[in-house]
Amino acid sequence: MSDSPTSASGTKADEKASVSKGLKGIKAADSSICLVDGTVGKLLYRGYHIDDLAANCTFEEVAYLLLKGELPNAAELDTFDDPLSQDAALTPAVAEFIANAPTDAPPMAVLRTAVSLAGLADPTADDLSADGAYRKCIRLVAKLATMTAAIHRARQGKEAVQPRPDRPFAENFVRMMKGSDPTADETKAMDLILTLHAEHGFNASTFACRVVIATLPDVYGATTAGVAALKGKLHGGANTAVLEALETIGGPDGVDAYIESVKARKGKFMGFGHAVYQVEDPRAKHLKQLSRRLGEEQGDTTYIDVSEQLEEKVTALIGKNCNVDFYSASTLHYLGIPKDLFTCIFASSRVAGWSAHILEQLADNKIIRPSANYTGYEERTVTPLSQRG
Amino acid sequence: MSDSPTSASGTKADEKASVSKGLKGIKAADSSICLVDGTVGKLLYRGYHIDDLAANCTFEEVAYLLLKGELPNAAELDTFDDPLSQDAALTPAVAEFIANAPTDAPPMAVLRTAVSLAGLADPTADDLSADGAYRKCIRLVAKLATMTAAIHRARQGKEAVQPRPDRPFAENFVRMMKGSDPTADETKAMDLILTLHAEHGFNASTFACRVVIATLPDVYGATTAGVAALKGKLHGGANTAVLEALETIGGPDGVDAYIESVKARKGKFMGFGHAVYQVEDPRAKHLKQLSRRLGEEQGDTTYIDVSEQLEEKVTALIGKNCNVDFYSASTLHYLGIPKDLFTCIFASSRVAGWSAHILEQLADNKIIRPSANYTGYEERTVTPLSQRG
Repeated sequence: MSDSPTSASGTKADEKASVSKGLKGIKAADSSICLVDGTVGKLLYRGYHIDDLAANCTFEEVAYLLLKGELPNAAELDTFDDPLSQDAALTPAVAEFIANAPTDAPPMAVLRTAVSLAGLADPTADDLSADGAYRKCIRLVAKLATMTAAIHRARQGKEAVQPRPDRPFAENFVRMMKGSDPTADETKAMDLILTLHAEHGFNASTFACRVVIATLPDVYGATTAGVAALKGKLHGGANTAVLEALETIGGPDGVDAYIESVKARKGKFMGFGHAVYQVEDPRAKHLKQLSRRLGEEQGDTTYIDVSEQLEEKVTALIGKNCNVDFYSASTLHYLGIPKDLFTCIFASSRVAGWSAHILEQLADNKIIRPSANYTGYEERTVTPLSQRG
Repeated sequence: MSDSPTSASGTKADEKASVSKGLKGIKAADSSICLVDGTVGKLLYRGYHIDDLAANCTFEEVAYLLLKGELPNAAELDTFDDPLSQDAALTPAVAEFIANAPTDAPPMAVLRTAVSLAGLADPTADDLSADGAYRKCIRLVAKLATMTAAIHRARQGKEAVQPRPDRPFAENFVRMMKGSDPTADETKAMDLILTLHAEHGFNASTFACRVVIATLPDVYGATTAGVAALKGKLHGGANTAVLEALETIGGPDGVDAYIESVKARKGKFMGFGHAVYQVEDPRAKHLKQLSRRLGEEQGDTTYIDVSEQLEEKVTALIGKNCNVDFYSASTLHYLGIPKDLFTCIFASSRVAGWSAHILEQLADNKIIRPSANYTGYEERTVTPLSQRG
């Protein structure tokens, strides 16, 4: 803006001081979904530690937990799995849109459009009753994985693989991505990735979902906003950047030169440190071992070898631990997923958290509408167009 | 949520008190775009009073003002009009999507999807440089009107009318809606409607745009979130509800009975009062006279007669003035626009304000990420699935 105001009203120092830019530290609502304690590296979903969930639960159980507030027993899980499986198939319009989407378009823009489009074919889309919204949330948790897999296949010029209702969620997801049955470790890795990324409090995409649903439009629109926000490089792109680093390094011999080059350009080491965690990101460690097993299974441990060396040396150098994005990069690589699809995988997991927040917002709704601190012109008078200089 | 937690951490009374539900009164950022002073009924865009702008400027000038910060001179307006005219045409994919969208889908869901889809065909969509983002904003201001008109035509089973680059914005918009040249008063009415709805500070849809763009994805995604939020009945639907009231009343003879029925069911009079304005909404009066002229032009003044009676009687009864939505309902009706398209017209105007806020956010960006007040379970331990009761 070259024509900035020379005078302004409402900009006294005391008023300026009260601006909460980025809303950091402002408690925007009560929430019982997630506790992130960055000082001790603790992450709880509905009270359960992420380590406990990663060790003992599938993504289906975690999604149920997030949406309903409690872990399911076997009968409840069956009742949840039915719509989750049955809703996984895409409607013809969405399948056709993805199959014909420009292959040079960002996959997250395709996913965003697919989510919005899916709402058009759902005659119950605008039903925001507790049951209605809950059913829509399950539907979207089911569909984002299928959409992501279809986007991946379309970009390779391949036909989409139809979901199989009889398969567990993570197994089905890898199967739809690669077009054949996954190994047990591949399924386990995907299940872990889905669980670890499912929820993280009032992050920007989750908050976008809440801002949108609070005007009472529909669950598809709120989820579309979540995808739109996650697409941003300040939010969903970190593990993509980690894989780019691994590609640049090439092999274990390249680690030292890479570190020197980042230092020389005063760059940032991707996958280290976290805005919230002052100690280790509790999600970081879970994928390390599985990433190695997948590498060994495929007879190429280059990226996990590089990752482990890089972790050790960078942590020693900058005093920051690696975060969840760090080992998810090599893990997703070993799952055969190209780096520009990583954020779509993230969305396919985080949709469970978005859904939990959408339902929580609806259960005790108030429109979300902050104020601005006005720094513009005081009142002035329009000069007619013909007399403007 | 039937399984609510029985114990909670971090819920001491003093912490509860600090929750800013809905962020009411929280200043989320500095902003020089808009001043709304509800105590005296003042609305300024970039320092200019809405009365002054309504009397002296076209929507093109207002859009330029919002995006650039100053009113254009004649040469600047020409430079702005060129892309605004040239970008008005839809790409084949978007035109085809709208022509074939389910006619029973909510028009705002179709518009939301069309905006998201438009990004896929723009190879510069992800360019968030100041110039790049500005160009995208003009593009979307240009396209939302064309999309809205195409949605209207498709729902009537009619072919879309192509935009004409040589026509002023409002004239072109009415022309694309009705399929023939508008009268001078029809053009003037649309121009006023576009100007009056273009901007209103940190409302929910504008804030949704800012939350999304702050992760640095793309302008299409942020605008998609704006459309998604405006679709909600707590936000964009008020003039639709006013027209429903006019339809129910039917004619001047029905006003008293309607007022009695609303009183009897303790209902709300739509189009009266405002969340922000404690005195008269400064936008309300502008459309009254034009609405009557359009009614007279068409030889049917029923809805404006009803509106004027209703305004007088309801204001006397409840002590609240009518707001901008009140006379925009009969005006849009006389423009031949069905009530379920009203919110798309609103979006075609508000996209100018959304754009201004997107550019302002990008110029001094910080990711928007508030906190939550955790009210959930303290840490608990996973019981294996087989042992859950």
